[in-house]
Amino acid sequence: MTNNTNHEILLKTRPQGRVTSDLFERVEVPVPTPGEGEVLLRVLFLSLEPAMRGWIADAPNYRDPVPLGAVMPGFTVSEVAASEHPDYAVGEIVAGRQGWREWAVSDGSDIDRKLDPEAAPITTALHLLGLTGITAYLGLTEVGRPKAGETVAVSTAAGAVGSAVGQIAKALGCRTLGLTGSDDKVRDCTSLYGYDAALNYKTAGDLSAAIGAAAPDGIDVYFDNTGGAISDAVMEHLAVRARVVVCGTMAIDPGGATANDPPAMGPRPNRQLLVKRARMEGFLVLDHMDRAADAVAAMAGWLREGKLAYREDVTNGLEAAPEALVRLLAGENTGKMLVRVGEEPAGV
Amino acid sequence: MTNNTNHEILLKTRPQGRVTSDLFERVEVPVPTPGEGEVLLRVLFLSLEPAMRGWIADAPNYRDPVPLGAVMPGFTVSEVAASEHPDYAVGEIVAGRQGWREWAVSDGSDIDRKLDPEAAPITTALHLLGLTGITAYLGLTEVGRPKAGETVAVSTAAGAVGSAVGQIAKALGCRTLGLTGSDDKVRDCTSLYGYDAALNYKTAGDLSAAIGAAAPDGIDVYFDNTGGAISDAVMEHLAVRARVVVCGTMAIDPGGATANDPPAMGPRPNRQLLVKRARMEGFLVLDHMDRAADAVAAMAGWLREGKLAYREDVTNGLEAAPEALVRLLAGENTGKMLVRVGEEPAGV
Repeated sequence: MTNNTNHEILLKTRPQGRVTSDLFERVEVPVPTPGEGEVLLRVLFLSLEPAMRGWIADAPNYRDPVPLGAVMPGFTVSEVAASEHPDYAVGEIVAGRQGWREWAVSDGSDIDRKLDPEAAPITTALHLLGLTGITAYLGLTEVGRPKAGETVAVSTAAGAVGSAVGQIAKALGCRTLGLTGSDDKVRDCTSLYGYDAALNYKTAGDLSAAIGAAAPDGIDVYFDNTGGAISDAVMEHLAVRARVVVCGTMAIDPGGATANDPPAMGPRPNRQLLVKRARMEGFLVLDHMDRAADAVAAMAGWLREGKLAYREDVTNGLEAAPEALVRLLAGENTGKMLVRVGEEPAGV
Repeated sequence: MTNNTNHEILLKTRPQGRVTSDLFERVEVPVPTPGEGEVLLRVLFLSLEPAMRGWIADAPNYRDPVPLGAVMPGFTVSEVAASEHPDYAVGEIVAGRQGWREWAVSDGSDIDRKLDPEAAPITTALHLLGLTGITAYLGLTEVGRPKAGETVAVSTAAGAVGSAVGQIAKALGCRTLGLTGSDDKVRDCTSLYGYDAALNYKTAGDLSAAIGAAAPDGIDVYFDNTGGAISDAVMEHLAVRARVVVCGTMAIDPGGATANDPPAMGPRPNRQLLVKRARMEGFLVLDHMDRAADAVAAMAGWLREGKLAYREDVTNGLEAAPEALVRLLAGENTGKMLVRVGEEPAGV
């Protein structure tokens, strides 16, 4: 099952401003050999995240930056190719954190769970049944706390987290308004992800007026993945006691060594928060992982019931990962951004 | 006890920018006569509030603006001068909402409670045992939720609400940092209100660095009465899971018809809120009045125990109320701003 080539992608330089593919370096290394208590994993899929911009920046963040020269970290789905570990058998499929590499040895500490290819497509472990879905579910329910009948607005509404948030809110009985950046994505929002309304913020003209027309009773929960001008327009339509889930800041933080320094300027939210007695709160899923299993169970249930649609944007080959990350950060992806690192085995 | 002169102050014009005394008009009217079920009140003290700027502005707010030509509303302490109401006897002292006038007739609906001049100075009903103290107590405990040992920062730290917040936080076992605008107020903060540290934001130089030095473990709760540059400096030092109570926006909202339109610009808080998983929430005391009695009871207890100091800035004569309000909004007051409208009766 193994062959003699293995590649890894290392972080070479930190970004100065925008993330570019030349920050990374691909190197050829031997396929490792598992020792006692270890498995050899053949990586099948690698997941790319908007948060990776923060991971590689040398700026205050919720985790230490990826060291220069280290293999870029990332969530993966892999096949067990060889095993000296009692808990894993050759041929099993696992979700874990093997990073940007083709082959990895693991003692199990960076394996998160085994997947059942019969229960759901294995790639869903990298989005709806992975950190993306957990983020959407826990950010919405623990910070946003929507009640049936309320209006939930979502930025990057057709993105991986956003489309999950919109569908969870709908499943919870809310009215949903999606904000996205192309007419194709607007169509996805309403026809694929079931949003009650969706707006292309690039062509809406007076975005605030369009939001007001789409949500005449105001926004009760705003799940914000962007910040910036899109969010400024939403903030003008908060309902009394609204909750703003600050999950991402893609529109205001270019990432890299100069991340948010000097800080992005914009309208101060204080008056809106005061007059509407609204709450704006940062959400980091890693703080809530004690509830991750609840989230996955809820998401798996809705997935089986056909209530959760998804779209994947799959790039082939580990070597294409840096360019795929750049596309993701530019908002040019058309679904959850995945890299197919190795061919799936038959029957998966 | 009555005489033949009575004055009222009416709102004549809405502010264009800053509040000025010529927005108001003083008129002479007859002393009213109470009918069946009514009392005649002689107003002793009138309370002035920073929020009055919002009350008179024709801008989105949490209450309808004061109508032009109407008596300016306000919290008062009054003596019952004549009574046709079974619940009130002549000579009793009451706290209520009689507004900017010398005499008022009431059916009891705008009387909040009777005061016991033996239990506490009657003017405390207009601050520590009134809406100011209730605001401080409920804003801090219901939104800020400080725990013993945490660090609580307060803007307008020597002001009516701020000085109460600082002392409540101290009584709850917190470390307190006051931000204020003069060296006299800094002295009040540390010697009168018991702050562990206080900074004059006008002379601190690099305010952010000064805050960082005064609160090396970060700010767990920030009770914000100002917004603006002071708050920007505090936001740079939020601790993980910090809570920002947005109680006032004095520094960014000039008030008047143009209140916050266009909105004040400043550094976006999104990155700080996300990285620190912090919460920023608007607080309006009127939403929490179901807990007002608890707040007054707690404050009265601390007041009896000598844990709550206060300073009053008393102006004499109803006619001086507009100028006193202007001084208050300019931050030139030296304590809770009160207007002595009528002489206290003997023994009060």
